[in-house]
Amino acid sequence: MTRDLSPSVQRDADGRLRHLITLEGLSADELTALLDLAQFYVREAGDLPARDQSLSGHTIANLFFEPSTRTRVSFELAALRLGADVVNLDMQSSSRVKGETVLDTIYTLQAMHADILVMRDAEPGLPAYVAQFVAPHVCILNAGEAHLSHPTQGLLDALTVRQAKGDFAPLRVLIAGDISHSRVARSAWQAFTTLGVAELRIAAPDDLMPGKGEFAGATRFNDIDRAIAGVDVVMALRIQRERMRGAHMPDDASYHRAFGITAERMKKAHPGAIVMHPGPMNRDVEIASEVADGPQSVIQQQVANGVAVRMAVLATIARNVQSRRTFQ
Amino acid sequence: MTRDLSPSVQRDADGRLRHLITLEGLSADELTALLDLAQFYVREAGDLPARDQSLSGHTIANLFFEPSTRTRVSFELAALRLGADVVNLDMQSSSRVKGETVLDTIYTLQAMHADILVMRDAEPGLPAYVAQFVAPHVCILNAGEAHLSHPTQGLLDALTVRQAKGDFAPLRVLIAGDISHSRVARSAWQAFTTLGVAELRIAAPDDLMPGKGEFAGATRFNDIDRAIAGVDVVMALRIQRERMRGAHMPDDASYHRAFGITAERMKKAHPGAIVMHPGPMNRDVEIASEVADGPQSVIQQQVANGVAVRMAVLATIARNVQSRRTFQ
Amino acid sequence: MTRDLSPSVQRDADGRLRHLITLEGLSADELTALLDLAQFYVREAGDLPARDQSLSGHTIANLFFEPSTRTRVSFELAALRLGADVVNLDMQSSSRVKGETVLDTIYTLQAMHADILVMRDAEPGLPAYVAQFVAPHVCILNAGEAHLSHPTQGLLDALTVRQAKGDFAPLRVLIAGDISHSRVARSAWQAFTTLGVAELRIAAPDDLMPGKGEFAGATRFNDIDRAIAGVDVVMALRIQRERMRGAHMPDDASYHRAFGITAERMKKAHPGAIVMHPGPMNRDVEIASEVADGPQSVIQQQVANGVAVRMAVLATIARNVQSRRTFQ
Repeated sequence: MTRDLSPSVQRDADGRLRHLITLEGLSADELTALLDLAQFYVREAGDLPARDQSLSGHTIANLFFEPSTRTRVSFELAALRLGADVVNLDMQSSSRVKGETVLDTIYTLQAMHADILVMRDAEPGLPAYVAQFVAPHVCILNAGEAHLSHPTQGLLDALTVRQAKGDFAPLRVLIAGDISHSRVARSAWQAFTTLGVAELRIAAPDDLMPGKGEFAGATRFNDIDRAIAGVDVVMALRIQRERMRGAHMPDDASYHRAFGITAERMKKAHPGAIVMHPGPMNRDVEIASEVADGPQSVIQQQVANGVAVRMAVLATIARNVQSRRTFQ
Repeated sequence: MTRDLSPSVQRDADGRLRHLITLEGLSADELTALLDLAQFYVREAGDLPARDQSLSGHTIANLFFEPSTRTRVSFELAALRLGADVVNLDMQSSSRVKGETVLDTIYTLQAMHADILVMRDAEPGLPAYVAQFVAPHVCILNAGEAHLSHPTQGLLDALTVRQAKGDFAPLRVLIAGDISHSRVARSAWQAFTTLGVAELRIAAPDDLMPGKGEFAGATRFNDIDRAIAGVDVVMALRIQRERMRGAHMPDDASYHRAFGITAERMKKAHPGAIVMHPGPMNRDVEIASEVADGPQSVIQQQVANGVAVRMAVLATIARNVQSRRTFQ
Repeated sequence: MTRDLSPSVQRDADGRLRHLITLEGLSADELTALLDLAQFYVREAGDLPARDQSLSGHTIANLFFEPSTRTRVSFELAALRLGADVVNLDMQSSSRVKGETVLDTIYTLQAMHADILVMRDAEPGLPAYVAQFVAPHVCILNAGEAHLSHPTQGLLDALTVRQAKGDFAPLRVLIAGDISHSRVARSAWQAFTTLGVAELRIAAPDDLMPGKGEFAGATRFNDIDRAIAGVDVVMALRIQRERMRGAHMPDDASYHRAFGITAERMKKAHPGAIVMHPGPMNRDVEIASEVADGPQSVIQQQVANGVAVRMAVLATIARNVQSRRTFQ
């Protein structure tokens, strides 16, 4: 399976976004348009969610080769609230068991007029690979790809920051934790870099720091206490326990002491700093419970923004494909 | 996890029902109002089911920590027929595997504007615990909680009896089987006691009889043949095979001989008595097949009433929350 | 479990199709009417799928005792696009685990006003058995039954051939592979025989050839190269690896050499021949990849036709039942 690393794989012949596989190559204007539409779909807690019929007549298939209830439900609700039909395929079972190739599964769904395929996979390369083969009216949305890309997460992180801070230009943003294995970090880095934050810092134990070829422009720290000083945004990453040993921290408590986002450490950030986490959290490992539930936390807003961002992406992609249908 | 045993946990500041966690504390008028609305949603077999848009714009999430296809489908159909969006979360997989706390899962769903959360759990305490933390517009419906509570089952049992018998006042009702482990028995006891039946009998082998602190007002029997004499309603409970040994009955046949509801035993009940079972049945264990399928059986009506009762509860809860939204 | 082999089991008192369990006994006119309606629901790739409200107010339950994502999704989309409510029951879990009999599960769904039950099972006999017991307004659709019957597959195969070839009368059709275990082959044989093809050939290794009592009128071959000569339609069947040993072919490569549909072999067919496969394919086992993806392949059309055929069957069955409701 080869991966076309060119961001052009996700655009149609007229340069419009047709798939969303990576935030790489999206302009600040494009990101801003997606955030604006997402903001249009945001509702207050306690209000009914936004609804329209942007996807009426469309069929969305969720193909999760790597299970994730929260992301699947977020995409499912986004699609339902835009009037789409939604089918869920648990790819652990059935076809894969029978030895059907992934591409044949995709062709099958495409033949059934499923026109937006939402895919999550633990391995790299599948979304871009598939995108090269699907019919012109079929769109691939990457819902999480190995350590590489999670574009709707990057967008929801950017939307959450914009809601709290307004302008990206003066911001110092810290992403902390297992950077090397994190698709969340990579998509956030792409979003914040393109949107032009003043400084992007990444902080990780040496064994969890990515190579120099990645995260261009980011300032690197292996000391969380230095990294957090004065930042406006603190984004904690989920730690995989098995990787802590790679970071020479054999247990939760030692990781928390060395790299956890604690109330004590938050005092070193800018007083108005916000705290983010992509979820699900390991409480009192990468983030202290009191911080996660504290006044600086915007973690619930991230979840709410997740549905709004996915609605915006779905509606945008469907509109771009529709305009090709109409004018060709 | 602590459980607020006060029934007030399920009411809002104005005393309206906001969650449904237990039938404890509901007045006869409140139960009757729910039964009346449920009856409004009942349709004849062969007619299309009742539908309206009471839950249009609402999102229902089914969180089944203990699997139950029939109860999940009953709630799912109730919600769909009221125009809601429904998402199913299989809690065996995904988030729990990743170690996310249940409360974080709830907060996640709440942030996604899922405003009614239907929960089933084999452990006691989760619905009331969660209800203390959710946002003011979020409702918790208990779809089965350990041995403690299954309120929509108690309502559907009451509705079924009312359809067959009209008035609760003169009725003698028998609940028979593994009373001690049965949430069905507890919720039925609450419903029938509040609605004022003449006599409620519980019959169980000694080892499956609950302690004296429970089932106040019920007459206790360890001899099914004496218990069944003259009753108007016979409710058989599902037996768990592993518990029969606790009741000193090593196999299905010996339980059936000692406590099964047989045609022979039914002759001792009132001639017009009805037979109920919450399902799924162990045929020829707690109930003889000929009784389950016989003319006195209302077991299929119970299932049909289950959807109608869940529609009534969903619509009532949503209306109560909506009226808070509107007037505050 | 006894199976009523008479095709009359699937008709109501007036002879109308009420269930669809087998294509046996359907007349050419009935098949043609179903194909015509299915064709009405076919849309070009790239167009939005057909939709109407033929099943508005109806509830479809998918009961898959044998898992099959592609067939389940095909039925699910067909039902959603006709405006039905759909619930999926994974029969591996839940009720079956609890020991509920299948018939009790059916009665439960029927009581919940699920009026069309789509069933797939690895064992023979369940659909016809269940059909004898359900209420007059409940319909059973067979979505695959052991090696015996897969009627919507037979219909979609016929529709695909009709789209490519127009008229059945002059056609020579070959079904090749593991005929003996194939419900696809049996339903295709019934469809093509009733629709009157000029010649139906079946080709299989001796150990995978069915007994003489079946496939009446078909010409039998154990040499694929002779069987394929001059045919207009080549239908390759999915091979189960464990059965190849029965056919004295210990591995994929030897089966492919002996019986695979290759480009070389396709040269012996009629120049305008089409190639079909029910999916999921074992590429380069029963069919060469270059043939599956080549210009003669109509495999994707088969999948697309699958949804259209299921819409036609659902709409027809629901209309037949509705007309009983109305006039009785």
